[in-house]
Amino acid sequence: MVAELISVGTELLLGEIVDTNAAYLAQELKNRGVNLYWKTVVGDNQERVVEAIERALTRSDIVIVGGGLGPTEDDLSREAIAAVAGETPTVDEAALAHLREFFRSRGREMPATNTKQAWLIPSAEALPNPNGTAPGWLVRTRGKVIVALPGPPFEMKPMWSEQVLPRLALPQAGLHTRTFRTTGIGESHIAELLGSQLTGARNPSVATYARRDGVHVRVAASAATADAARELAAPAEAAVLAALDEYVYGTDGDDLAVTVGRQLAARSETVATMESLTGGLVADEITNVPGSSGWLVGGAVPYAARAKIAMGVSAETIEQHGTVSRETAREMAAAARERFAATWGVATTGVAGPDSSEGKPVGLAYLAVSGPGVDEVSEIRASGGRRTVKERAAIAALALLWRSLRRLEAGQ
Amino acid sequence: MVAELISVGTELLLGEIVDTNAAYLAQELKNRGVNLYWKTVVGDNQERVVEAIERALTRSDIVIVGGGLGPTEDDLSREAIAAVAGETPTVDEAALAHLREFFRSRGREMPATNTKQAWLIPSAEALPNPNGTAPGWLVRTRGKVIVALPGPPFEMKPMWSEQVLPRLALPQAGLHTRTFRTTGIGESHIAELLGSQLTGARNPSVATYARRDGVHVRVAASAATADAARELAAPAEAAVLAALDEYVYGTDGDDLAVTVGRQLAARSETVATMESLTGGLVADEITNVPGSSGWLVGGAVPYAARAKIAMGVSAETIEQHGTVSRETAREMAAAARERFAATWGVATTGVAGPDSSEGKPVGLAYLAVSGPGVDEVSEIRASGGRRTVKERAAIAALALLWRSLRRLEAGQ
Repeated sequence: MVAELISVGTELLLGEIVDTNAAYLAQELKNRGVNLYWKTVVGDNQERVVEAIERALTRSDIVIVGGGLGPTEDDLSREAIAAVAGETPTVDEAALAHLREFFRSRGREMPATNTKQAWLIPSAEALPNPNGTAPGWLVRTRGKVIVALPGPPFEMKPMWSEQVLPRLALPQAGLHTRTFRTTGIGESHIAELLGSQLTGARNPSVATYARRDGVHVRVAASAATADAARELAAPAEAAVLAALDEYVYGTDGDDLAVTVGRQLAARSETVATMESLTGGLVADEITNVPGSSGWLVGGAVPYAARAKIAMGVSAETIEQHGTVSRETAREMAAAARERFAATWGVATTGVAGPDSSEGKPVGLAYLAVSGPGVDEVSEIRASGGRRTVKERAAIAALALLWRSLRRLEAGQ
Repeated sequence: MVAELISVGTELLLGEIVDTNAAYLAQELKNRGVNLYWKTVVGDNQERVVEAIERALTRSDIVIVGGGLGPTEDDLSREAIAAVAGETPTVDEAALAHLREFFRSRGREMPATNTKQAWLIPSAEALPNPNGTAPGWLVRTRGKVIVALPGPPFEMKPMWSEQVLPRLALPQAGLHTRTFRTTGIGESHIAELLGSQLTGARNPSVATYARRDGVHVRVAASAATADAARELAAPAEAAVLAALDEYVYGTDGDDLAVTVGRQLAARSETVATMESLTGGLVADEITNVPGSSGWLVGGAVPYAARAKIAMGVSAETIEQHGTVSRETAREMAAAARERFAATWGVATTGVAGPDSSEGKPVGLAYLAVSGPGVDEVSEIRASGGRRTVKERAAIAALALLWRSLRRLEAGQ
């Protein structure tokens, strides 16, 4: 079974937005053993969308068209698919009523241009979209399947899993993958620890990927069934874990904020943040995790020096060592803990750039953790622009908290 | 002149790495008036790379192949281009000497596998790569040009500007674009306000894009020179601004946080945040802007009810109306302003999900702004997952602040 992706949109073609849908669908297909050989990006031009679909039908079984289902004249995927199928769209009354209701429930009248979102062709089945106005299409033509899905990821993803997957008879999954997420170790050091016997093998395969939150190590195996693939991968997974144990903080989708949340919940402990450099990013990461109100009491972003003092950092420390210092970071973590009456306090201070500050270079950051019997400060020098420096410092702060909690868990 | 991009690499196809090169090249081509209609992503498979190049040669003048120039068996772009040109690669002795020197200068011996990076075919000109081992190729065949460049961006970009551009006789740049960023209005309403005369025109063209921070309206024009294009676009830009003025907060790269920062700096005023729902995201957005320490005094993320009370929200208000309420949002904004002694206070409270809270539905959010003579609260219902709800609320809060500042600027 071979699938092919066609992403429609001039803004995608020109790189103005990143095509995260394609990455999601590629993983989804791979996990079901469907081969993906081609992805084509084409602008908002009917002739070229038709050409791309025609071409795809010659070499793939499933053609997934993403985007171009909006209400404007530039949204041409429906027109293109109808042209490929040689059919004429008509307005589907049920879909139209649904659209009108969507607008009415939001206190607005449906603009006339949205009518085309209620179009249907004879060989198309409409795929309901609970999160937007554009229904998808599933078209069976020439013994192949064309699936049209809207561009916004929060509309596309539930439609893929709830509407498309049940309608496609995809082959039994015979693939197993597990990703180990590490922090505090580089890619080449990992390669050395794993050894070429692990990294050189084909099935199970072990591959490393440098990501913004550390190096990910992925073990993948394929076999007749998912169970057999899991069994095949097991020794490699055990070997990876044995070699990298002290660096692995989570598996698969568990980022540092998820892992730290799980650690805190298990101990019935809480955390509070005090961020200067990262400007709220650490709290933002923590609150992306469902249930985080169970462990995050609160946070502060005392950006100005006077705000730091108001939050409990001593004026003398700032005077003596500067706001970007080991000492200020330590006091901020302690102040966070105290002010919010939390078990743990996490703090960040540093120079985000573009200009240096207090004679300290861009990228210099101090991360601190204060907790029961714990008082840790670490220093990093992050390269990159302002946003990258913030992200690296936020990750380093969460990593420091993870490691502190882990030591307590291990009774060290 | 039409160019086409072919990105080679299984990890690109599977979405494991993001193709930032394509975005860069798309902008580069656009700025020189070269049309880009197609981008194809194909895995490390010679047959399919050949097919993609063959197809591209039928419809484009310049075919840019990115990636697949490494030393491993998986790197097949050279082989594919040679097959398309019907020529056999031979080892170029000058290139081989250069490669050996590259390794020697790093204290290593050249692995035998790297020899293929010194290959050349008769119709190819080698493009030196000062930052890596893979030279590029510029191949003239069938009256078209094929350019092969390595994948790593820090290798590709200097090669593009220093090696490829001087060799291609690209037309004089004659393109002008301007993007108007709006908030508080939907795509179809914008289309109605603009009218089909504007949106239906080809040059200058006016296109709308729904983005996470609102709808962007882009005016683009092409002419013999950039100045002529700017002049051609001027009436359309004026018409867009006249139709949408009250919704336009910025142009081109200026997001809401940049615009708000500029407004505050111009008035020598400051802001403080108090975020529940958004968990620090509003402060994070504000602090992504260079110089934001000039207007952000600080922020708080009082996630637990007791933290809100500690930050100055009255227990009675929370008791009576709940933490997710118009009243609590209003008090949070006032408390932010007061506690941080800032000109403006911005607050968010709501239900991020996945579960409802206090009997209130997921996605319900209250945003509040407190300032000199200003006391505004707005309610939204955001659809989507936890992260999307947070993002929408953060944007709505910044939009509320922008609008409040704008009214003062206009003396309303």
